[in-house]
Amino acid sequence: MGAPFLIVTIFLTLASSFAFASDPSPLQDFCVAVNNPKLFVNGKFCQDPKLATADDFFFKGLNIAGNTSNKVGSNVTTVNVAQIAGLNTLGISLVRIDYAPYGLNPPHTHPRATEILTVLEGTLYVGFVTSNPDNRLITKVLNKGDVFVFPVGLIHFQFNTGDTNAVVIAGLSSQNPGVITIANAVFGSKPPISDDVLAKALQVDKKVVDYLKAQFG
Amino acid sequence: MGAPFLIVTIFLTLASSFAFASDPSPLQDFCVAVNNPKLFVNGKFCQDPKLATADDFFFKGLNIAGNTSNKVGSNVTTVNVAQIAGLNTLGISLVRIDYAPYGLNPPHTHPRATEILTVLEGTLYVGFVTSNPDNRLITKVLNKGDVFVFPVGLIHFQFNTGDTNAVVIAGLSSQNPGVITIANAVFGSKPPISDDVLAKALQVDKKVVDYLKAQFG
Amino acid sequence: MGAPFLIVTIFLTLASSFAFASDPSPLQDFCVAVNNPKLFVNGKFCQDPKLATADDFFFKGLNIAGNTSNKVGSNVTTVNVAQIAGLNTLGISLVRIDYAPYGLNPPHTHPRATEILTVLEGTLYVGFVTSNPDNRLITKVLNKGDVFVFPVGLIHFQFNTGDTNAVVIAGLSSQNPGVITIANAVFGSKPPISDDVLAKALQVDKKVVDYLKAQFG
Amino acid sequence: MGAPFLIVTIFLTLASSFAFASDPSPLQDFCVAVNNPKLFVNGKFCQDPKLATADDFFFKGLNIAGNTSNKVGSNVTTVNVAQIAGLNTLGISLVRIDYAPYGLNPPHTHPRATEILTVLEGTLYVGFVTSNPDNRLITKVLNKGDVFVFPVGLIHFQFNTGDTNAVVIAGLSSQNPGVITIANAVFGSKPPISDDVLAKALQVDKKVVDYLKAQFG
Amino acid sequence: MGAPFLIVTIFLTLASSFAFASDPSPLQDFCVAVNNPKLFVNGKFCQDPKLATADDFFFKGLNIAGNTSNKVGSNVTTVNVAQIAGLNTLGISLVRIDYAPYGLNPPHTHPRATEILTVLEGTLYVGFVTSNPDNRLITKVLNKGDVFVFPVGLIHFQFNTGDTNAVVIAGLSSQNPGVITIANAVFGSKPPISDDVLAKALQVDKKVVDYLKAQFG
Amino acid sequence: MGAPFLIVTIFLTLASSFAFASDPSPLQDFCVAVNNPKLFVNGKFCQDPKLATADDFFFKGLNIAGNTSNKVGSNVTTVNVAQIAGLNTLGISLVRIDYAPYGLNPPHTHPRATEILTVLEGTLYVGFVTSNPDNRLITKVLNKGDVFVFPVGLIHFQFNTGDTNAVVIAGLSSQNPGVITIANAVFGSKPPISDDVLAKALQVDKKVVDYLKAQFG
Repeated sequence: MGAPFLIVTIFLTLASSFAFASDPSPLQDFCVAVNNPKLFVNGKFCQDPKLATADDFFFKGLNIAGNTSNKVGSNVTTVNVAQIAGLNTLGISLVRIDYAPYGLNPPHTHPRATEILTVLEGTLYVGFVTSNPDNRLITKVLNKGDVFVFPVGLIHFQFNTGDTNAVVIAGLSSQNPGVITIANAVFGSKPPISDDVLAKALQVDKKVVDYLKAQFG
Repeated sequence: MGAPFLIVTIFLTLASSFAFASDPSPLQDFCVAVNNPKLFVNGKFCQDPKLATADDFFFKGLNIAGNTSNKVGSNVTTVNVAQIAGLNTLGISLVRIDYAPYGLNPPHTHPRATEILTVLEGTLYVGFVTSNPDNRLITKVLNKGDVFVFPVGLIHFQFNTGDTNAVVIAGLSSQNPGVITIANAVFGSKPPISDDVLAKALQVDKKVVDYLKAQFG
Repeated sequence: MGAPFLIVTIFLTLASSFAFASDPSPLQDFCVAVNNPKLFVNGKFCQDPKLATADDFFFKGLNIAGNTSNKVGSNVTTVNVAQIAGLNTLGISLVRIDYAPYGLNPPHTHPRATEILTVLEGTLYVGFVTSNPDNRLITKVLNKGDVFVFPVGLIHFQFNTGDTNAVVIAGLSSQNPGVITIANAVFGSKPPISDDVLAKALQVDKKVVDYLKAQFG
Repeated sequence: MGAPFLIVTIFLTLASSFAFASDPSPLQDFCVAVNNPKLFVNGKFCQDPKLATADDFFFKGLNIAGNTSNKVGSNVTTVNVAQIAGLNTLGISLVRIDYAPYGLNPPHTHPRATEILTVLEGTLYVGFVTSNPDNRLITKVLNKGDVFVFPVGLIHFQFNTGDTNAVVIAGLSSQNPGVITIANAVFGSKPPISDDVLAKALQVDKKVVDYLKAQFG
Repeated sequence: MGAPFLIVTIFLTLASSFAFASDPSPLQDFCVAVNNPKLFVNGKFCQDPKLATADDFFFKGLNIAGNTSNKVGSNVTTVNVAQIAGLNTLGISLVRIDYAPYGLNPPHTHPRATEILTVLEGTLYVGFVTSNPDNRLITKVLNKGDVFVFPVGLIHFQFNTGDTNAVVIAGLSSQNPGVITIANAVFGSKPPISDDVLAKALQVDKKVVDYLKAQFG
Repeated sequence: MGAPFLIVTIFLTLASSFAFASDPSPLQDFCVAVNNPKLFVNGKFCQDPKLATADDFFFKGLNIAGNTSNKVGSNVTTVNVAQIAGLNTLGISLVRIDYAPYGLNPPHTHPRATEILTVLEGTLYVGFVTSNPDNRLITKVLNKGDVFVFPVGLIHFQFNTGDTNAVVIAGLSSQNPGVITIANAVFGSKPPISDDVLAKALQVDKKVVDYLKAQFG
């Protein structure tokens, strides 16, 4: 009964940000990103370095709690090259994650990102799972002032086990870590993955597949 | 009803291999891997280059079909640094993937891997999904002689839509791409993810969680 | 007598493709290459990611044998960023190599490329030579299903020792491996290397040099 | 008069930590550092991955203020591969910096590090200076919740302009960023830089040089 | 008395060039830099490779002594991507450094650079200092034909201890190593670092700070 | 007649050194190489950094001309990680090349190396050839004080066109650039390339092949 809902929700995740150990190195002091409507490169185009100002390296408001009024009870505020243009070529970014009581940042993975997380408030049960074939789960209960590392590309989660809000700040090893939220990709892709594939993957009939997809429509 | 089964099966995937664009570069002609029981490094220790022989760069049997008698009807044969010690430091590997009729290599992702796949036999419906927030699905039906690319870290799949076996060979951009099979990590980790977390993630009671975990016991 | 001919032919090579372990890493999911007539970057400019389609990651026809009616009796079909724009930033590519009976892919080297080769049909005698001062030759006779690795930058060759056609597929560790065909560079460069240099290099008089150059005119 | 003192103090800095955009990439999920008394590699040796536990990825106490009772009134608590062995190969680290009222983290630079800093409490006047020949100073006054970036290798500082304590957490793009505290290197090196060099550099007689060195004895 | 002068001069340095171990790798044979008045990238845009000429890889005049008539008695002639456009993407550059008798290339550091220096003429006392906490000074007296290495990012100097001119050529591991001349950054930045910060850093009153800044006005 | 000799000599080259743009980055100040008789890594093991001395970063004698009494009249003195242990992890090296009057450093290529060369004495005709398919020759006559760049992996040469000795110093973008001397690899490998392959490659009978190999025996 709740099973379809469970599937809807199982991966309805808010992504935490990450950063990868191998962004290409800078070839000048900095290369402040600018958007070009017609042309793109690996990373970002840059503005004339003579025009750089402090605001190109600045972001405000990371002290403001994100809105956790959602199904999983967590929210991620990202501070990467999209928010601080000056991060372009510099291989790092940050996030703030807020958790309502019993809020969860559900299992997800990331293409370009190791995360190092610090608990500012609250108590979190966190973990990551190693790749095949072992799939070892490595977990820890974290309290205020605790730091934990999630290696690049591995599935991980954080769960607020307390009845108070929790807050973390995490450093990430890329200017644009990227996030792969499993359920969005599997059930909510645009266009949807064909019923033939998901029915085979789920070993269910297409009605169930269509129901699952509907939750993400 | 079938829903728990579906969740058991949803991610029961056999991994394809991959390779990443940024393995560190070699600092000598080659550095044939050797295992050291007591000590490890990033990558592998190497043997004395004077001892290198052709067999250090050789693997046989990629013409032999893998056994696809399993729930998803596909099988991956990997040829990475674990099979060819000479691949150490060289940033590439291969796989052969076999598909029974209607066999599927279900959605999965990889921490260190772009894949470029060539269809040797059969017809495959393949696709990958972009990262958040767009989660665009990009798909193609591939026939013999077609080549397709799965960018590093993105969730992707291959499905044999024909009533004959299918076979592919794929090149991968790392000596040790790694595979993250979602279901194994989420439902089959050792030890299991706590019922508190998964019940919250699935928005179901712990009975359903325990049932799901049982399928991977 | 045949000596000048031999020199003409000695390096008349068809290149196999390759890929190098250290292409810069991607900073987004993908960055599909587009050509810009006026401006260039390291690698390629990219199109708007919103415009990406499956065809940007697709190539067809790798099942079609290349034409081996040439002096060395081999042919390379390349599948790199020039054929699949979606390979840009992803650090890998492929080739198919066809060999007529007794066809040879003669000694050559590559600036950005390790190659991992799989024999689909036929029997090949393959080898590579280590760099100075050892110049060790490492060889193997390969049959259907055998895999062999040629480390980046080392001179290597493949020779069809059978009286049937041979076919291989090889994975390569760069989006644009590059090929250095020795004879084309030494005798067929445009403009030619000066007679003074080649006469000294070959320790012959300029008539021989001019004759050699003529074979590549 | 105070001039010699000024020189003593001018660069007496407590280092903030940093991280660089180009640590080599990991070749496995993780590679938890272990020390080897006799042998070293670029980075660290690793323990058997089978032995990894949550504590290898964990650090506690970042909520505890550092002792700022020193000449500059600031203190850096580092969380890099020396504190979290699991950071080895993962290209990122963290620091907490505490500032007494009017405390200063004086001008310094770093060999392998971009820093992204978040103000948790207090008001800081921060800045960095571009490299030769422009030597542009880029500064900002930061309040609670503000984020600022210091590009790798550039001289930078943070000054607590308020009459309350200030606290920041910063993410850094290397497992071992390194710190170059100018005064310690110039006046406090072991053994000292020769009087001949420093007298020439400072255009003073050796008495002044010896006085300066004495402050770091 | 001379103290303020000493501070003016202490870091008035002419930079030596450097090179870093991790410029991103080339993705084609070469990518000759061209300037674009409106747009920038990490590194440089390139011209059409078809237009490349020998002059794009050429620089003349490194046999000409630089003018050492300055306060420190040394001069650096740089040959990096700004002088040889063809160096773009190739990860290396050169410098010539001239020293008057008793001339000094004072302590400085660099963001993207290891330097390997060869003495062509004269006698130099050279050294570098390791990072915190050891700050070990490693020095050597170099004569004609001696070679010495300054690791990336570490503070180093060269001092002509002879009564004749000295000359070196140094190879550098980046196309654009960058130089951080400490005094220019600390006392001569544009705009200046605030008196509040420097007075605190120097533990002197603002009159001294203003005097120091004046030397760089 | 002289033809076989010419082939013997055609590639009998003394290698110049080189350096590549993408050695992995250092993870500490330095990592002075030590040899381990039993175990190897990518690059070199290091000694305890506490034991580092100036001699680990030092090489003497680059002012001494190499012996050019050989068939090509040139000689290369290498200064890479094999000569200066301190270069390990630092991504750069040097060479001195001496040329007798009309001496030649014949066409050769390199797996991990861009070279930037400075003429100290003499006049050289230098060139490199681009990769397939263009094989453009780019040449320049260099005099004292001229600098020229040879991009990584491309075939290049230097020829002393004067009747006096010539000397160059070149910077190279790897700690261990490697050299591929074509003739040594093709005709002098140990064991030799099979007569079947070379007879086919040279389109000559095995007597000629055996003769050529004999010149390198």
